Amino acid sequence: MLSEQIKVVLTEDEMPRQWYNLAADFKKPMLPPLDISGKPIGPDALSAVFPMNLIEQEVSTERWIDIPEEILGYLKLWRPAPLYRARRLEKALGTPARIYYKNEGVSPAGSHKPNTAIAQAWYNKQFGIKKLTTETGAGQWGSALSFACSLVGLECKVYMVRISFDQKPFRKIMMETWGGTCVASPSTETEIGRKILAEDPDTPGSLGIAISEAIEECVRSDDTRYALGSVLNHVMLHQTVIGLEAQQQMKKIGEYPDIIIGCAGGGSNFAGIAFPFINDRMNGRDIRIIATEPEACPTLTRAKFRYDSGDVAMMTPLLPMYSLGHTFVPPPLHAGGLRYHGMAPMVSHALREGHIEAASIGQMECYEAAVLFARTEGFIPAPETAHAIAEAVREAGKATEEGKERVILFNWSGHGLMDLKGYQAYFNGDLGNYPLPDELLQKSEICMQGLPIPG
Amino acid sequence: MLSEQIKVVLTEDEMPRQWYNLAADFKKPMLPPLDISGKPIGPDALSAVFPMNLIEQEVSTERWIDIPEEILGYLKLWRPAPLYRARRLEKALGTPARIYYKNEGVSPAGSHKPNTAIAQAWYNKQFGIKKLTTETGAGQWGSALSFACSLVGLECKVYMVRISFDQKPFRKIMMETWGGTCVASPSTETEIGRKILAEDPDTPGSLGIAISEAIEECVRSDDTRYALGSVLNHVMLHQTVIGLEAQQQMKKIGEYPDIIIGCAGGGSNFAGIAFPFINDRMNGRDIRIIATEPEACPTLTRAKFRYDSGDVAMMTPLLPMYSLGHTFVPPPLHAGGLRYHGMAPMVSHALREGHIEAASIGQMECYEAAVLFARTEGFIPAPETAHAIAEAVREAGKATEEGKERVILFNWSGHGLMDLKGYQAYFNGDLGNYPLPDELLQKSEICMQGLPIPG
Repeated sequence: MLSEQIKVVLTEDEMPRQWYNLAADFKKPMLPPLDISGKPIGPDALSAVFPMNLIEQEVSTERWIDIPEEILGYLKLWRPAPLYRARRLEKALGTPARIYYKNEGVSPAGSHKPNTAIAQAWYNKQFGIKKLTTETGAGQWGSALSFACSLVGLECKVYMVRISFDQKPFRKIMMETWGGTCVASPSTETEIGRKILAEDPDTPGSLGIAISEAIEECVRSDDTRYALGSVLNHVMLHQTVIGLEAQQQMKKIGEYPDIIIGCAGGGSNFAGIAFPFINDRMNGRDIRIIATEPEACPTLTRAKFRYDSGDVAMMTPLLPMYSLGHTFVPPPLHAGGLRYHGMAPMVSHALREGHIEAASIGQMECYEAAVLFARTEGFIPAPETAHAIAEAVREAGKATEEGKERVILFNWSGHGLMDLKGYQAYFNGDLGNYPLPDELLQKSEICMQGLPIPG
Repeated sequence: MLSEQIKVVLTEDEMPRQWYNLAADFKKPMLPPLDISGKPIGPDALSAVFPMNLIEQEVSTERWIDIPEEILGYLKLWRPAPLYRARRLEKALGTPARIYYKNEGVSPAGSHKPNTAIAQAWYNKQFGIKKLTTETGAGQWGSALSFACSLVGLECKVYMVRISFDQKPFRKIMMETWGGTCVASPSTETEIGRKILAEDPDTPGSLGIAISEAIEECVRSDDTRYALGSVLNHVMLHQTVIGLEAQQQMKKIGEYPDIIIGCAGGGSNFAGIAFPFINDRMNGRDIRIIATEPEACPTLTRAKFRYDSGDVAMMTPLLPMYSLGHTFVPPPLHAGGLRYHGMAPMVSHALREGHIEAASIGQMECYEAAVLFARTEGFIPAPETAHAIAEAVREAGKATEEGKERVILFNWSGHGLMDLKGYQAYFNGDLGNYPLPDELLQKSEICMQGLPIPG
């Protein structure tokens, strides 16, 4: 036996065979999505955009949903993902806490996103769909969906926000290597794109515009559907393999976490690690579960719970969620995946019901933690992941102060090899924290007036 | 039991505890290195550049050398590396061959290079050394050594060829994230660098110049040594964990390869997968072992075996190896790690003794295979790795023609996420094959005159 085991690996036979659906266990049910007039919308209203098998998952309250064997076959490419004990980080921190992280950076696209990209591509294929459209900001989701479509056998069209398209040319090449098509948004390929370009040919684009283009292309054609990488219930569901594996891995080494941490943008990687543990907590486990977000985009910590649209152009239904307002434009953080105005309704509901906590962290503290992690644990984290690391470092510090042998588990959602510019800016002293001024928050409040607020 | 297992994983307990030294099993011993006057050099002559514990490994003929427990502790971060069955690639090729690949891209630096970087850093640290210097071309080795020095606790200084330094800024950021220092070579930090800059301020630099600078800084200081990422015997030794793990993994699933393939630049990843299987072959196994190199840099397939220097400035000893001549400048292939004029003396000797075969492949065929691999197996390969994939595809094709159920194993030496520009050039139709014209080969012959040729 090698001293100091650091990885807990599972075999393919030990993969979870079912996704866990937290919706089954909420005492108070979630509020329904609404149309723009404020009426609850049914499954049919979504059928032009999503295939019915995914819509069924979106509205399901079944506790366990079988993972089809073929999806498991694809996930096996990188799953089960290893669980690590961060022994060198612990030593550098001088903490009595035992720190564990689940490494989701081992997927071909480098993050947790393929967990749902594979599932969505497969269900669309089953439904007879030939092509998926989507939007991407920094490029993580567009890469993951291109990868998934390549394996499953679908066409993939990604509208990438123009400023990111220009700044991050390598993401586009990744997508093309997997056979996806990536165009800068606004593009000349949609009516809305042409309209916006006519008004402002030099626009940097926005996620809202890109969503509008992807949906426009999708509804134009019967065998095309749209895919979203976070926020929706079925996306949270697909990510629960992360936490289900982590539970098994912890059990294997006779450990159980006192604190579970994930960074939160739209909510999907957080949900992945957290939801199975929320179930344990409902069953009496004394644990804390923390969602960590940027100070610059404090959806869970400073925004209100309300009905809001998922995109700027209000093409999505109104969703019950914590939101900074759908017109909110966050500062230019490097953690592009955390620059989202809203939060997944399931994660929002879990916070309202008291199952989880939320914390916000400044960009500088995140990069400090990320560099410490890289220099002790070796793997270079994505800037989003750095928010989970920074929170783990904070909690380890508290354990040190209190002299407690606490067990901390966090989700290492992805590697930073495609995001090294942020590290360069950090080393050059060019980074800021971008705390959100009150007046910006109030502005985002104002823009929400007129939308129905749930009681 | 999940149908169609695709990964074979080992636990940390199953890691190899000893490196395999092929030098113990060569029937005809290898020729010694020579000094510039043609005299064999002893271990002491290397002591200004390498620590004595590594020099001992360099000259050792012990068959098995224990891997220190602390080195295993570092390697566990990503080892044992998974062995994959490439089922989707097989299906796309319609071959009866079963294709396996060893995924060395799972290391924090993304390639096999950390296997020796960790070992070299650790032995230097044990010897009381404070700082390592090295050169890097495309950046793989400089990244790996920075990573290793960060974990082990050494300073690291990397001289990066200026043209690569300018073209690949992300490699420099990777090194800095791990705490390494990376300067463009020629630099103003060495005499030779200043001299070259005075003569030609706009020089793009070369690997030869970078080696000269790294060695100059190293010999200037008692507690600084130099580290090389390939070519030398101790580097080959450290890489044998790859093949030793693969042997165990194959055994676990009741398989044994008929053909073993690795790409070869300096020779280290090829040696890693191949040497333990050469041992099996010496013991009667009927297998073929193939080193694959670029048509544009055909060291094993078209160059002569001779004594040659490892660098342009002839600062290294003369090594007995296949070489295109130390002044040979290969065409601008994207597989930067395979643009080396020589070949590791151990690999060269293995070819002369008939234990291995060599093949060369054009750049276009490699990218074609790499894209097919990415779209079936998901992982995007490095351009160097693409040479091993292309050879596996060729051999699978032969198996199809002959209707044989052949088992093919190749080393997937690293991922291509830092090398996406080559894919872009491929998709844009901007790539060529660069077959080496005879006159260039003859020119490299001429420049070798005057050096002693082994009988």
